[in-house]
Amino acid sequence: MGHERSESDRRGLQTAAEVRAAARSGTLTGQTSGLAPGYAQANLVFLPQAQAAEFLLFCQRNPKPCPLLDVTSPGDPVPRRVAPEADLRTDTPRYRVWRHGELVDEPTDLLALWQPDLVGFVIGCSFTFESALLRAGVPVRHIEQGSNVPMYRTNVPCAPAGLFHGPLVVSMRPMMPADAIRAVQVTSRYPAVHGAPVHLGFPGQIGIADLQRPDYGDPVPLHEGEMPVFWACGVTPQSVLMAAKPPLAITHSPGCMFVTDLKDEQLAVG
Amino acid sequence: MGHERSESDRRGLQTAAEVRAAARSGTLTGQTSGLAPGYAQANLVFLPQAQAAEFLLFCQRNPKPCPLLDVTSPGDPVPRRVAPEADLRTDTPRYRVWRHGELVDEPTDLLALWQPDLVGFVIGCSFTFESALLRAGVPVRHIEQGSNVPMYRTNVPCAPAGLFHGPLVVSMRPMMPADAIRAVQVTSRYPAVHGAPVHLGFPGQIGIADLQRPDYGDPVPLHEGEMPVFWACGVTPQSVLMAAKPPLAITHSPGCMFVTDLKDEQLAVG
Repeated sequence: MGHERSESDRRGLQTAAEVRAAARSGTLTGQTSGLAPGYAQANLVFLPQAQAAEFLLFCQRNPKPCPLLDVTSPGDPVPRRVAPEADLRTDTPRYRVWRHGELVDEPTDLLALWQPDLVGFVIGCSFTFESALLRAGVPVRHIEQGSNVPMYRTNVPCAPAGLFHGPLVVSMRPMMPADAIRAVQVTSRYPAVHGAPVHLGFPGQIGIADLQRPDYGDPVPLHEGEMPVFWACGVTPQSVLMAAKPPLAITHSPGCMFVTDLKDEQLAVG
Repeated sequence: MGHERSESDRRGLQTAAEVRAAARSGTLTGQTSGLAPGYAQANLVFLPQAQAAEFLLFCQRNPKPCPLLDVTSPGDPVPRRVAPEADLRTDTPRYRVWRHGELVDEPTDLLALWQPDLVGFVIGCSFTFESALLRAGVPVRHIEQGSNVPMYRTNVPCAPAGLFHGPLVVSMRPMMPADAIRAVQVTSRYPAVHGAPVHLGFPGQIGIADLQRPDYGDPVPLHEGEMPVFWACGVTPQSVLMAAKPPLAITHSPGCMFVTDLKDEQLAVG
């Protein structure tokens, strides 16, 4: 497992390949935020082929919370579209193993668990649009305060697909109105990483009773004159997976993302 | 100047050239809304060369309320970029003549008033983005109720230029949040006709005390769950002109726009 890297070691990880090598060697076992700046990081889901087809359909029907960057062939650990030199079994710092919806292990590789029928789903992550927001001069509160983004289960149902159904989960960033308008413009350019907001202004309209009590992540303050802006969140597929309780599912560990070879700007349209 | 056209006559005006010919012949002396669908309509301002240079600077510094589609050379009545066959002195249904800030006449042509030093400004109009909103399935309340859009003087100062200074005037359209997000996307494609909203959500933040008491146009109801969305408005340059009280200024009459040869979609970016 190796020791966790120091901050200066971490800052040395400038490319996706370097981050993945550090994860593979066991010297990086923690969060990937801020590593390999400019490279798109991604959520991971693995399912046996029996459930993978329905999950693929679920993602296809719900592209805002589940934007697919790559899907592997059964048993193939290589995400050939987004990182053709990578191995999804080893190149992520930490994984979570779920059996019948229960978290049973948090290993740093999947070599012992691998099965020839596993399908890997590489799903876009909000880190990409957040760095675009920062470049556009739009402040992002949870980054300023060094916490996790607050996330909420809504009353908006995802389009179901077989085993998989459940509510849309959203992330929230408080903004002044002019920044909210700019944020719609900026994030609209990134449909492959959740795209434009799904709501702004009235949390009650999407079934959120109390912004200070997120279902996942940490609360952030709303300052005078700000409005909450909500994006579809990559926790949605995880939440749906947990509810479906398949015999086996594997995900990345929170914040320990898979780093692709795609540059954030390659995911921009226009 | 001839009788006003019947509704069926009006509907016959399908192209910009037809609308301008009807205005020139005096058979069209009223509003242009709905005529020549797909063609970009525009606000007009004429100023003597002495004030025109400063007004040009004002427009350059305030592109959201004053998006310039064309500016004529002194004495030239032809808007060579947007309608090279047109004559700005005759091809608009009705004009307003202002002397020292006072409305003194509302003629249907400018032939008797024309001076060799007059400069014409052709300024983008929200009709273009409103038809894009409707095509995108975003309802526009004042169009639904057949009234003028409500407009408000804000506490946001325009960037001044010499004689010309004053507050930004905005138009307001109430929308459900998801439509407001879509409206930001749609109108961002039209920077030449006011572009993206300047504000949404909190009228008080831009100095608007009561949405039901617009400074220009007609009030519209806000329904449950809607938010007000505000765009920079082409009434801004007129309001600034009235405050500057130049010896002579000429504008179009409200709703009686100049119809350009540009198709609305030519004004879209992306």
